[in-house]
Amino acid sequence: MVGKTIDQLLVGDTAQFSKTVSETDVYLFAGISGDFNPAHINEQYAEQTFFKTRIAHGLLSAGFLSAVLANQLPGPGTIFISITLKFIAPVLIGDTITAQVEIAEVDKHKHRVNMKLSCMNQKGKQILAGEAVVSPPKAS
Amino acid sequence: MVGKTIDQLLVGDTAQFSKTVSETDVYLFAGISGDFNPAHINEQYAEQTFFKTRIAHGLLSAGFLSAVLANQLPGPGTIFISITLKFIAPVLIGDTITAQVEIAEVDKHKHRVNMKLSCMNQKGKQILAGEAVVSPPKAS
Amino acid sequence: MVGKTIDQLLVGDTAQFSKTVSETDVYLFAGISGDFNPAHINEQYAEQTFFKTRIAHGLLSAGFLSAVLANQLPGPGTIFISITLKFIAPVLIGDTITAQVEIAEVDKHKHRVNMKLSCMNQKGKQILAGEAVVSPPKAS
Amino acid sequence: MVGKTIDQLLVGDTAQFSKTVSETDVYLFAGISGDFNPAHINEQYAEQTFFKTRIAHGLLSAGFLSAVLANQLPGPGTIFISITLKFIAPVLIGDTITAQVEIAEVDKHKHRVNMKLSCMNQKGKQILAGEAVVSPPKAS
Repeated sequence: MVGKTIDQLLVGDTAQFSKTVSETDVYLFAGISGDFNPAHINEQYAEQTFFKTRIAHGLLSAGFLSAVLANQLPGPGTIFISITLKFIAPVLIGDTITAQVEIAEVDKHKHRVNMKLSCMNQKGKQILAGEAVVSPPKAS
Repeated sequence: MVGKTIDQLLVGDTAQFSKTVSETDVYLFAGISGDFNPAHINEQYAEQTFFKTRIAHGLLSAGFLSAVLANQLPGPGTIFISITLKFIAPVLIGDTITAQVEIAEVDKHKHRVNMKLSCMNQKGKQILAGEAVVSPPKAS
Repeated sequence: MVGKTIDQLLVGDTAQFSKTVSETDVYLFAGISGDFNPAHINEQYAEQTFFKTRIAHGLLSAGFLSAVLANQLPGPGTIFISITLKFIAPVLIGDTITAQVEIAEVDKHKHRVNMKLSCMNQKGKQILAGEAVVSPPKAS
Repeated sequence: MVGKTIDQLLVGDTAQFSKTVSETDVYLFAGISGDFNPAHINEQYAEQTFFKTRIAHGLLSAGFLSAVLANQLPGPGTIFISITLKFIAPVLIGDTITAQVEIAEVDKHKHRVNMKLSCMNQKGKQILAGEAVVSPPKAS
């Protein structure tokens, strides 16, 4: 139950996780965050918008990135220091999002790792770009 | 159901939202994101960590900020361009988090607004700092 | 709120429960169990499989059998000793599953009852077969 | 996104997953399965039982085993053939359950693998034992 320590992390290592975004995901995210933007939970409203239908919360896709960082790379024990996210394109209900993280820099002195973040939809279009600074788990 | 347009937004305007973080919030966030970091969902593991108990996902508090931006300031119709988050301190199950946003800059030419973000717990300790760039709703 | 005691149970007695499996059921089951098999939550992946679309977790249908045992036959107070399940065919999102239990053997000496388990879909195809040993409620 | 093929599986290989069972897990399992046994969702009733408090559904712990089989060993692409579960001791809300699977037999001719299943609580007490027959993913 311990992820990779800083000595096991190499620039260029990647990991990913994919999930089809369901209406349930969007509604539960609304329910726990309180973000009831009509763009997410009001189809009548959403039909009048540029996107013509409800879209998922941007932070839901960020959650998939969080899953990759926490479960795989570096994995369990990772502490999040900071995260930057650019929302490039909308995620529609039914889209399959692939969240990918890549190690961009390993700073053993500060015990921090910079990760490049990216999410793509099922058409290969990037919908989110970003970066995270994390502190990987220490050897037990 | 339309938020404030860019002409109605002034530097220094603030809005906030508070919620007590429940175990349900944390478990649903894990369930929809796939982030099953044992720090969030394994009390036996968490007792051995620096924090001594399970902590909430950092992006859950970010969701409260998203709620303020989407519901209040600028409000419905706001499009998120980018967000940067620094996780300063842990959020424990049972903590009451106040998410606050403040308008830092209004760029009418680019039709974008910079927001300063902050989350505090019930003891007044800041647990998250950040900033967001958003595009406020246009006059209908 | 007490089910049938062992004296009220006869070999051949049956009970059933039917539910249409929703995407919500599948996503919540994934979220609480942690079973994020892409066959359940990734439509893009699932389209490449033999089944061509996402399928429900086998244990979700088992849950419907658990509901019949706990709610109806023998009913409230029943303790589950063991269960054996054979997964015969996939359950697709939107399928209506009928879970049926039948009393196969009543052992008053050991205070145990053997139940034959079966699930069928809306086309009458059996998708799950099994058996359970339960201890029915005692007279209060 | 593909788990281990049959050639990569060795007798004795193990994998595990741990989760603290929350009230939310129990209530969502009740909600999706329909198993509203008062032992799970009625504290007033449960106080009068041998266990003195609400207990989790046995199939919830089975779900954690399903997660290990689907996510780790053999991993994504695994098809469940059959599963047998013996419920040995109750799981209380707040218990931390560790689900472990171990490869017991590899039958390359039939392309099936027998897995030994076990769940323990935070005190090291075994609460569930079982076995599963699965068909591991084939090489793509």
